[in-house]
Amino acid sequence: MQRTSFEDMNCSIARTLDIVGEWWSLLIVRDAFLGVTKFDDFQARLTISRNILTQRLNHLVDNEILQRVPYQDHPPRYEYRLTEKGRDLFHAVTAIREWGDRWLAPDGPPLKLRHNKCEHVATTVPVCSHCGARLDIEDVTSFPGPGAVEGDYDRTRLEGMSTKRRVPRSR
Amino acid sequence: MQRTSFEDMNCSIARTLDIVGEWWSLLIVRDAFLGVTKFDDFQARLTISRNILTQRLNHLVDNEILQRVPYQDHPPRYEYRLTEKGRDLFHAVTAIREWGDRWLAPDGPPLKLRHNKCEHVATTVPVCSHCGARLDIEDVTSFPGPGAVEGDYDRTRLEGMSTKRRVPRSR
Repeated sequence: MQRTSFEDMNCSIARTLDIVGEWWSLLIVRDAFLGVTKFDDFQARLTISRNILTQRLNHLVDNEILQRVPYQDHPPRYEYRLTEKGRDLFHAVTAIREWGDRWLAPDGPPLKLRHNKCEHVATTVPVCSHCGARLDIEDVTSFPGPGAVEGDYDRTRLEGMSTKRRVPRSR
Repeated sequence: MQRTSFEDMNCSIARTLDIVGEWWSLLIVRDAFLGVTKFDDFQARLTISRNILTQRLNHLVDNEILQRVPYQDHPPRYEYRLTEKGRDLFHAVTAIREWGDRWLAPDGPPLKLRHNKCEHVATTVPVCSHCGARLDIEDVTSFPGPGAVEGDYDRTRLEGMSTKRRVPRSR
């Protein structure tokens, strides 16, 4: 089943979902964070068909989240490693996981993190990049950024705020 | 098309995806964060069929992300408001958005946040809940938590670490 592409939506959330929003993709990325690199290991853990797994891995390679790295010549064998762009998904994956831990984990978190430097078990706290204070939803006000185009915020509370560009850039 | 439920996976990421991983759901939540509450406004912004939108809104209500609140009696009319559980998705939505801003926004971020208190335009920085230092992927070590069950980390670098519970709790 082909779905609508979100790529043309002028929204960083929609564009991200276009790459990792497919149900399996983010679980592949999760397993890559846990050190999984080989096709057969992804397949055994996700109990997904080889066909679908191949599609999802190729999609992640095409979008530079994973790279295929040869680890054996005869016969040729590849493993899948996170790129810098893929590793940078750590914050999003962690925020999703911690929400699940708070709301959907009756037996406690299945996974915990220890901070190597202070050696304490820790969760992440989002703080302001300028002043370092904790940022919750009520602490911030959103407004159109430089990438906004006319119409992006119609029918929202940001409607009428000026956007610099009037038409979407051709992509 | 019915898909496999992730709910039975013993993983907070999979369980979260089971609720908001569907392509449209997180965009509905995004619009709710932008102040959208009415069916027709979601529909106009997402250009989604009324049928699919109804399904997704009901799913989010059933999972206590949104609540239906009457705002008019004759005829009866409802709006959709984020619950506390829904508002708590702010951190995950923000982390996803900021990743998209870094990697997929050639014209700059379509949306920016201002921190109300320090009045600066800000992004979020994930820090350690114990010591307050910035946490990146290389700063942490993951290990099985209290909710882990045997088999959760097979074929990963956590394989062999002890898990407290031996079998999944019946759900």
